[in-house]
Amino acid sequence: MSDLTVRRKPVIIGVMGSHKGDVDTLADARRLGEAIAKRGYVLLTGGGGGVMKAASEGASVAGGLVIGILPNERKKPLKDYPNAFVDIPIYTGMGDGRNVINAKTAHVIVALSGSTGTLSEIALALKSGTPIISLHAPTFDIPDGSEFYSAETVEQVLEKMEEILATGFPHSRG
Amino acid sequence: MSDLTVRRKPVIIGVMGSHKGDVDTLADARRLGEAIAKRGYVLLTGGGGGVMKAASEGASVAGGLVIGILPNERKKPLKDYPNAFVDIPIYTGMGDGRNVINAKTAHVIVALSGSTGTLSEIALALKSGTPIISLHAPTFDIPDGSEFYSAETVEQVLEKMEEILATGFPHSRG
Amino acid sequence: MSDLTVRRKPVIIGVMGSHKGDVDTLADARRLGEAIAKRGYVLLTGGGGGVMKAASEGASVAGGLVIGILPNERKKPLKDYPNAFVDIPIYTGMGDGRNVINAKTAHVIVALSGSTGTLSEIALALKSGTPIISLHAPTFDIPDGSEFYSAETVEQVLEKMEEILATGFPHSRG
Amino acid sequence: MSDLTVRRKPVIIGVMGSHKGDVDTLADARRLGEAIAKRGYVLLTGGGGGVMKAASEGASVAGGLVIGILPNERKKPLKDYPNAFVDIPIYTGMGDGRNVINAKTAHVIVALSGSTGTLSEIALALKSGTPIISLHAPTFDIPDGSEFYSAETVEQVLEKMEEILATGFPHSRG
Repeated sequence: MSDLTVRRKPVIIGVMGSHKGDVDTLADARRLGEAIAKRGYVLLTGGGGGVMKAASEGASVAGGLVIGILPNERKKPLKDYPNAFVDIPIYTGMGDGRNVINAKTAHVIVALSGSTGTLSEIALALKSGTPIISLHAPTFDIPDGSEFYSAETVEQVLEKMEEILATGFPHSRG
Repeated sequence: MSDLTVRRKPVIIGVMGSHKGDVDTLADARRLGEAIAKRGYVLLTGGGGGVMKAASEGASVAGGLVIGILPNERKKPLKDYPNAFVDIPIYTGMGDGRNVINAKTAHVIVALSGSTGTLSEIALALKSGTPIISLHAPTFDIPDGSEFYSAETVEQVLEKMEEILATGFPHSRG
Repeated sequence: MSDLTVRRKPVIIGVMGSHKGDVDTLADARRLGEAIAKRGYVLLTGGGGGVMKAASEGASVAGGLVIGILPNERKKPLKDYPNAFVDIPIYTGMGDGRNVINAKTAHVIVALSGSTGTLSEIALALKSGTPIISLHAPTFDIPDGSEFYSAETVEQVLEKMEEILATGFPHSRG
Repeated sequence: MSDLTVRRKPVIIGVMGSHKGDVDTLADARRLGEAIAKRGYVLLTGGGGGVMKAASEGASVAGGLVIGILPNERKKPLKDYPNAFVDIPIYTGMGDGRNVINAKTAHVIVALSGSTGTLSEIALALKSGTPIISLHAPTFDIPDGSEFYSAETVEQVLEKMEEILATGFPHSRG
């Protein structure tokens, strides 16, 4: 396998979504992963199938580094974890507890479709001060002052992502 | 301090909500805690101020056992944690990670008003299969088949709680 | 099942040990659980089999409240978790992550025999400032100033436990 | 800052140790980090000062990728976390709970001197099936069959590391 080029102290973009997904959602995830890698950012996901895998594949094929925060541990294999495109598997053994880590680690999170797991990561990200961009993710009462943005297309996601990164990053986000 | 009477293998009711709350919300929380204790159930909260404290006070004054799942550890005091009415402080030191434990441990959760922390607990509870009753909690896209119920009053919460406990508990919920 | 009498804000004693154990170790665990309950203390264990179960049985039969901090979640049954004598199952879904909670929550921990899991709880307890009494637990280089005590019999454990509780508890330990 | 070259699916070596350390220990940590990077491996530490920082500096200066599994969250700054040489800060907000992740994620762990925190990581690693090489780390009763090795010098650590990686990796360790 070929080597990767990674920036020192790279921007980390989280893509959160379901372990399944319809064709359009998976295509969006793949394009998103690809665009993240091409910008020189590192991709962080929950490391499993569906949206997580499609985003990882997109990033990996485009030469990006892919981190997966896994619910299981190495000794206790779990179907689809890590998916084939994860370079750095972080084994937590903490089940849903790992959602907290996803929400706190990414500089920006893109929530792509998804269900209760994704909703928990959105809520935890808002609580943690991590900016979120939703692409067809579950909607909810958004607290005033939250860094929560809605997009309709992958292009809008990327535009908003650059806006967020241009403002205050890396000084305030470290 | 007087002793408590606790059932063996008691029903555990979680009350989730903000560390603050307006007068009406806190009054609801207190009445809810009281009703939980009078039914012989154990109260579980995040152990802090606001809704958590009001529910704990209600349960404690009515002679109930109060468990608090705390974000901090004993050696690292955190304002309002545990509140004065917690009998069993469970120190996790895991910050928001403790929300996962609240969501998985209660037999039924009542979400009372609240913000992003409460929303994360609702989402995690749905993902964990814990039934939820919302009393003015944040609303969101509820996945089909979720055990999620909305109530308008404390009385409606209690009625729904008894319905849930009558159905399948303790056989399916253990 | 009969009800329990529990003190408000009770002393919580952790008994840590293996999910297995020879006849003598299990007999010690059972006697320890019984003595903890008779003193009016609450028993905390990892909630599983072996030493955890024997201590829980001892405490339960003597009328004590038994808390189990479980590695699994309710929806994902795990053999022996919780054991039949746990009154309050705290479902974490965090695997070995739950060892951290055991170590931080108990006012005093008794480590009874055990292997790597118990050793991790001893180390985490020392790091957390929770006093430990070892009864044939794994030995190791004990850092200076640690509240670590060795006992040879259940009676010595109980004597040392009372000494620790008499000094500073509950003022410094809350 | 210059870019890094990282292998796809790299070997991840954990270096565990105290947030302080004497001159010799810190020199060993630095040399160890350097050697890890020169072999093309990724360095994983707890992301703080002392041994963690010295190893990170060694790896970083030698052009390696450095991951830090942090106890705090971005919004709650903690002195020395992450140290200046961490490229990928994984924010857990889980305090000592993050030790579990260190122990489960590395393919091989080197325990360098250290105290109770390091001992907990050694115990958790043994429980998780992660091979450990100790360089002056706390000693303890090692359970039979554990993949635990003692070394006296950095060179011996590296020799043993290669032996472990040559045997069974990556097939059995994934």
